[in-house]
Order: sequence, then structure tokens, then C-alpha cells
Amino acid sequence: MDQHDYSQGAAYVRGQYLPIGQASIPITDWGFLRSDATYDVVTVWDGAFFRLDAHLERFMASCRRFRLDAGLSPEAIAQVLEQCVCLSGLRASYVEMIVTRGQPPWGSRDPRQAVNQFYAFAVPFVWIASEAQRRQGLHLQVSDVQRIPAASVDPRAKNYHWNDLTMGLLGALDAGFDTVVLSDGAGNVVEGPGFNVFCVDAQGRIATPAEGVLEGITRRTVIEMAAALGLPLAQRALPAAELRGAREVFLSTSGGGVLPVTRVDGAPVGDGQVGPVTRRLVDTYWAWHGDARYSTPVRY
Amino acid sequence: MDQHDYSQGAAYVRGQYLPIGQASIPITDWGFLRSDATYDVVTVWDGAFFRLDAHLERFMASCRRFRLDAGLSPEAIAQVLEQCVCLSGLRASYVEMIVTRGQPPWGSRDPRQAVNQFYAFAVPFVWIASEAQRRQGLHLQVSDVQRIPAASVDPRAKNYHWNDLTMGLLGALDAGFDTVVLSDGAGNVVEGPGFNVFCVDAQGRIATPAEGVLEGITRRTVIEMAAALGLPLAQRALPAAELRGAREVFLSTSGGGVLPVTRVDGAPVGDGQVGPVTRRLVDTYWAWHGDARYSTPVRY
Repeated sequence: MDQHDYSQGAAYVRGQYLPIGQASIPITDWGFLRSDATYDVVTVWDGAFFRLDAHLERFMASCRRFRLDAGLSPEAIAQVLEQCVCLSGLRASYVEMIVTRGQPPWGSRDPRQAVNQFYAFAVPFVWIASEAQRRQGLHLQVSDVQRIPAASVDPRAKNYHWNDLTMGLLGALDAGFDTVVLSDGAGNVVEGPGFNVFCVDAQGRIATPAEGVLEGITRRTVIEMAAALGLPLAQRALPAAELRGAREVFLSTSGGGVLPVTRVDGAPVGDGQVGPVTRRLVDTYWAWHGDARYSTPVRY
Repeated sequence: MDQHDYSQGAAYVRGQYLPIGQASIPITDWGFLRSDATYDVVTVWDGAFFRLDAHLERFMASCRRFRLDAGLSPEAIAQVLEQCVCLSGLRASYVEMIVTRGQPPWGSRDPRQAVNQFYAFAVPFVWIASEAQRRQGLHLQVSDVQRIPAASVDPRAKNYHWNDLTMGLLGALDAGFDTVVLSDGAGNVVEGPGFNVFCVDAQGRIATPAEGVLEGITRRTVIEMAAALGLPLAQRALPAAELRGAREVFLSTSGGGVLPVTRVDGAPVGDGQVGPVTRRLVDTYWAWHGDARYSTPVRY
């Protein structure tokens, strides 16, 4: 009989289920000491995973790019994730799967000799914007900090290389902004801490950066929603000036879906209100959570 | 009475000393989940720390750059490090000190609200080159992978953003090389996994990259040794072509000091033998370990 309290979340650590507060990784795991790891986050909303297959597919692709082996099939990973959610009892949850390099035999510095490790946990759903921010729109700063370029770290493989995002966020918070988007060093915006960015011009055309960004599953959902709704959308370089002059700006993230931005660098976006294209995408995003094509009920 | 076996190493984890095999960090610490951490490594050789003050000074500077607080003075940190070494009994040790962001209150994504955490451990000394490699020289590959640029992550603050170094190393090992040096995207070499790089031209002039690199303490030691020995040394951009055409090439690292390189991209460096400037610096490096200016005996 399991006497643990999983109400704050449940984790899977090296073959064992534990309350989140007891879950840890060895200090010597290169997943920590070299940030040599990949991960993915899928959400559970109203008792069902949203786009679980897409997240598992991306996770397996991230593992291949970084030459990491989860040691489990996508089906087996899905079972572990579901068990974490079941143990926690959470109906709205943020569910993370991780593979770390682990550690090679002592003295070796060859990553190929390391035994990779799989971890997972389910915790209460995390919004990256407060209720007021979601209603009124976020105040976004365009940072001078440059996102780590693709020539250094492949952004398509989800990774914990966040120092640029963290330092940019600290600067934005200090200056009174809600959040931040980083640039590519050539005048274009790329992505922020945990989200992709979109803008809408006066003709209703949507644009989002094509390169140097994580191919977010929520970003993909926005692209698919735009197609379904007949809204024109381009993936291309997005100059910061275009973001500042846009009619509407919004973010996409697993931590809340489509999030409106109503000020960029202190100036209102359009009329400073959440715009109609953003509203339509927000509504569609949540409506799709009830669509059996995207939804996998948790068997609590 | 402490019954633990510390012979494989000792760690200090949130106020407690533990055998290294039991040392872990919470899976939810942003030090792991966002690689939001800084660290430093000082070595113990023949029962004495080498350049402990310089490492502590750099560690405190790294903390300031990333807005992390160890919560301990340099003196208190030195005591923890010494206690880790004493518990392990190791006469030759690799001693790491770490501050992680910790975790903000649940639901917050504001790094300023996190409680930073200090960790440390002492483990057996790790050479980054085998005995044969140290005698005959390493075979180095110049990688196309670009080191994360300073505009993204400040390389002067020691950090775990190593994916570029790891992927570069994997490519080099697969191709039969011993190790790798990354480039800056403009034809210059910068640094490798855990080391700085130097070359010597036909006139005996030493050069090492000035920018986009960690200001390694061993790099600094090489610069100081060159001054003491009257060897000319320049800190400047170092084109990969210059490395390939150099008379001598060597690496500097806490994991072994000055390490000769005798092949670059498959071709011999100079006559393919360890050169006289490299040998002189290797000898001086180890001689300085006995110098009271740089050496702090461990009180076992």
C-alpha cells in the first residue's frame, strides 16, 4: 500500500514513482553538470492530455538529435506520464518527460559511454501569465540579449539552455515588463522564455519567426488553427520593428495556449486592446481541447 | 559518529555532508530545469589546493554576473570545500562549488523570487587526457560547431551550457579524434570542452583567443608563466588556419594543466612531437604547485 502524498505532484525517477518533493537527480548526472539533456512538456486539461502524440513524437526526435536514448518506447513513456498524473489526481497538469546523459564510468569523458536516464513528473498546471494578464494582455519587452543561435545549439531539440532567456527575463522584470522576447542579432525577434511569438498586420496577415526557434507544439497548433479558420499565416524572419508596429501581437505556449500582448516596449499594440484575431485563436485553442483528434483522456 | 563511506568522494548538499553517491539536487531546481546555475572547479594536488583564492574570486564574480547568491562568504565556501576533501581523504581531487537558482514559490516564474542553493563536492582528480595522450600529445579536431556566443551567454561566468561542446566532442570522437575545439563562426577557434587553446609560431610567440572564451584559471596561469619565463604571449583572435600551421599547440585546463596537442585535423603540428615551449610550460605548471603563493595545504 502506497502511503505517499502525491497531491503536489508525482515523479518517475529511475524506475520508481515518488512525490514530487522527493524527486531528485544525482548531482553528478551530466544532465545537470553539462545541461546534457532533452525534455518535453505536455499538458493535461480537464482530465485529458492535449496533443500527447505530437509531444511524444517531438520528444523522440529531440532525443535523436542529441543522441540520447530514453530506453522506453513512446507507448511506454505515455504509460509513465499517465501514471504520474493518476497518482497526483490532478485534472489540470503540466507533465514533463526528460532524458539526461547520465554519467560515463568514472574518469571517462566520453558521452557515448554514459548510461542515459529517463525522468518524468506531473505537477499542477503552470500558467505563464496571470488571469489579469490573460484578460488585459501582456507587456512585452524586446531584449538586446541574443537567443543562442542554431549554429551553436539546435533549437528544434528542446533543451535547458536558458541562461539567455533568464537574463533577458530578469532585465525585463526589473524594467517593469511582464515578459521578454529575445532577438537574433540581426534585428529580428525569435522567441521568449517558454513561448513563440506572432504578430498580425493591418490586413489580418499573421507572421511568426521561421528560424532560430523551438518548433512549439502550440505554435504548430496556431498554424493549424489559422489554416482551419482561413487566416493567412507566414513563417519568416520577423523584424522587431514589425512587432512594434503590428495591429495585434500574441504568444503561443503550452503554459496557457494563445496569450495576448497589448504593449511592446511600453507602447500600445494597435489600440492597446486584445484584438479580434487573437480572441478567435484563443477560443479555438480551448475548443480544440474537446476535439477527440487532439485529446487523450487520462484513465484516473 | 559518521558511518558514511566517503572514499569515492564527499558532497555538501543543502547543509549536509554526504557520500558523493547519495548527493542529488531536486528535479524541480531551475539549476537543472533551466541550467540556471554557475560553478567553479579547483583542484587538490599532493594534498594542497592550487590557486584556491583565484577560483573563489572568479566564482563570486560568476555569481554576480548571473545574479546568484551562494549565501556564504568565500571563507565559508573554502571551509566547506576543505571539509569535503578531508572527508574523502583524497590527496588528488577535483573540487566543485555550485550555486543554483533553486525554485521560486509554486506557480511563479520570476527568478528573483527563487531561493538560491549552494552545493559542493570533492571527487578523485579527473584528467581530461590519458597518460599516453599527455606524453604523445592529443589529436584535436577543429569543429564547425560554433561556441555559444558572448551576446547570448556571458562566457566569463562559468556555466553548464555545454550542448555545443558535447555535440562537437561527439563528432570528433566518432571521427577518431581525441578532442575538439569549437569556432566562432568567423573562422577563429575559441575553446573546447573544459579547456582553453594556445599555439606557438615559428618565432616562439604564443597566442590564445581573447574573446568568446572562459577566462580559465589555468589559462591565466599560462599567461603568468609566459611572463615569468620571458615568453611573448598575445591574447587575440586565433584563426583556425593559424592553429593548423602552428609550430606547437597546447591546451590549458584544471583537468591536467598544460596538455600538448600534436595533430590538428589529422595533420602533424610542427614535427608532430611535443615542442620545447609546451614542455617548459608543463614543467613550470607542476613546479608552481609547490609554490606557497599558489598552494593552500588541506588540513586533513
